[in-house]
Amino acid sequence: MAVDIREQTLADWGEFSFIGFLRDRLPASHPELLLGIGDDASWWRPAGGEVLTTTDMLVEGVHFDLAYTSAADLGWKSLAVNLSDLAAMGGRPACVYLALGLPGTTRRSWLEEFIDAFLELADHYGVQLAGGDTVRSETLVISVALNGIPAAAGPVRRAGARPGDDLYLSGSVGDSFLGLRCLQGRLSVSGPAGIFLRERHLRPRPRVELGAFLGTSGMVNAMLDVSDGLIADLGHLLSASGGWGAELEIENLPLSSAAREALRAGMCDYPELLTGGEDFELLFSLAPDRFPELAAAVAGVGVELTRIGRITSKPGIFLLGPDRLPYQLDGKEGYDHFQTRDC
Amino acid sequence: MAVDIREQTLADWGEFSFIGFLRDRLPASHPELLLGIGDDASWWRPAGGEVLTTTDMLVEGVHFDLAYTSAADLGWKSLAVNLSDLAAMGGRPACVYLALGLPGTTRRSWLEEFIDAFLELADHYGVQLAGGDTVRSETLVISVALNGIPAAAGPVRRAGARPGDDLYLSGSVGDSFLGLRCLQGRLSVSGPAGIFLRERHLRPRPRVELGAFLGTSGMVNAMLDVSDGLIADLGHLLSASGGWGAELEIENLPLSSAAREALRAGMCDYPELLTGGEDFELLFSLAPDRFPELAAAVAGVGVELTRIGRITSKPGIFLLGPDRLPYQLDGKEGYDHFQTRDC
Repeated sequence: MAVDIREQTLADWGEFSFIGFLRDRLPASHPELLLGIGDDASWWRPAGGEVLTTTDMLVEGVHFDLAYTSAADLGWKSLAVNLSDLAAMGGRPACVYLALGLPGTTRRSWLEEFIDAFLELADHYGVQLAGGDTVRSETLVISVALNGIPAAAGPVRRAGARPGDDLYLSGSVGDSFLGLRCLQGRLSVSGPAGIFLRERHLRPRPRVELGAFLGTSGMVNAMLDVSDGLIADLGHLLSASGGWGAELEIENLPLSSAAREALRAGMCDYPELLTGGEDFELLFSLAPDRFPELAAAVAGVGVELTRIGRITSKPGIFLLGPDRLPYQLDGKEGYDHFQTRDC
Repeated sequence: MAVDIREQTLADWGEFSFIGFLRDRLPASHPELLLGIGDDASWWRPAGGEVLTTTDMLVEGVHFDLAYTSAADLGWKSLAVNLSDLAAMGGRPACVYLALGLPGTTRRSWLEEFIDAFLELADHYGVQLAGGDTVRSETLVISVALNGIPAAAGPVRRAGARPGDDLYLSGSVGDSFLGLRCLQGRLSVSGPAGIFLRERHLRPRPRVELGAFLGTSGMVNAMLDVSDGLIADLGHLLSASGGWGAELEIENLPLSSAAREALRAGMCDYPELLTGGEDFELLFSLAPDRFPELAAAVAGVGVELTRIGRITSKPGIFLLGPDRLPYQLDGKEGYDHFQTRDC
């Protein structure tokens, strides 16, 4: 009887066979990478001699649910969230390190799909898998570290927003939250809109090119990526910038047609869209007179930028609804990883 | 009634309070680190412009057992295993990134002890905690990534051993295996010998200074650290070097007095000491005529180096017992993370 080797478990396949498989999947070496997978450490010569580093850990049952997340979705997303952090510094990603904690019962086919999607996204941005670790764990855990290089002008930090700056957001907000609700069966959106929302949750598109353009432009005063929710992350930006405040204009928030339709149908409200998290969009502040020049510089990237409010000298986050009347969030403001919450 | 805040759980203390605690614990910034904890990524300018990177993941119940591993032991060891990898490249460690998956019930006191021991070891070697991630996980998971810099002559790789090279090992082998057996209650060694063995398992001393000296010397042909067991790691070195073989002289193996005593008392055998793993010693190969010069160069480090055998052109690992008679390992040769095994 023929046995499908892709249905082997990792315990049968073996750690070293998996590493061999990984090495075979890698493209020809990255020009800056002098030594990749297979030694005690990798060796890399970053152009410009400076390094940006970020790391993110994803845990089964907390950050993802395998009931509706495929191996390929997870491979993609575990790199995407790190690319988003590096984009938020205005940098360019270069070398990535993948530490995997895997049950011995993991199927070879599952791992191959995970790795192929991870490497598909890596290749797209010229990122090289340069090392990692593979260990046994009953719970599936993925920890990615990413090294990249800053723009010549240095990275764009969270600190640096000034009163009077305009606040801009890339793309649209709240889609990932709605997509998660759909995947959990708590919301029903059919057709292309439903597919779009679920994709925004499972396969976020990190703003790698936009981030690098914004970093190179030297025009952005402060930036971060929206992962904990727009309100929470705006709070982080304000706090890093020295405690200024911000006005957000609810009606100016960039919403996708799918999110706008869900809002109109009463399937969600503004507070949910503003705090849902995992948008992986870039939020940045800019002196108002710089926008035309910036818009011209990033026009080729094809990502929409929307002015959503401004930095104020008065501390706090003030939401303005229709007719600039105050809008209340009802205390749903942040995301702490240790509060119980849906994944 | 007074409440001891150190008995708070992480769920009460909160992720951001923990990060604030961490930042307060950090020493004044590292001269090369331009931006540390608190942004989307860290920013670092490595002296010499080149980077070595390694990463290791430790999982509760697989790599450690909290029944006999204290928070401080674990904090220490999770950095030590990465320092050992960097030492094995002949490099100098610089910036470390700590990703923690923690149950919400983790006590503040536990975390403080973990961090204090991690930072004690980091400070000792001038390593700066520059970033990380803190997430919720039912199973305790620690994933560390470490960036460092190679010696000016470049890193010492696994590849590079040549027939005729002598094989050297730092320190002693098998202590960690015996210490683990003691901790598991499977072996009883009392007094200072028992304390020594348990310490060798729980608080390994990575050969950071020795590794950097060996790297700078430019004399070492191939090197790695012994983590999977001496035989398995020697196999990795031979395979990376193009498939040469090696002769190991059993009677020349450096054993501590405690291990020698355990061997004499029949509490263990050579195969166990050779395959037990987690020695975190450096294994390297060298042209025979270079040793006197090398020994003089590293004399100040205070770590004993022992010639344990040589590289042969005949493939395979050949153990020589008393009178250079062949010695059999009975198939206990490697470590695969997905084989079931004691932690």
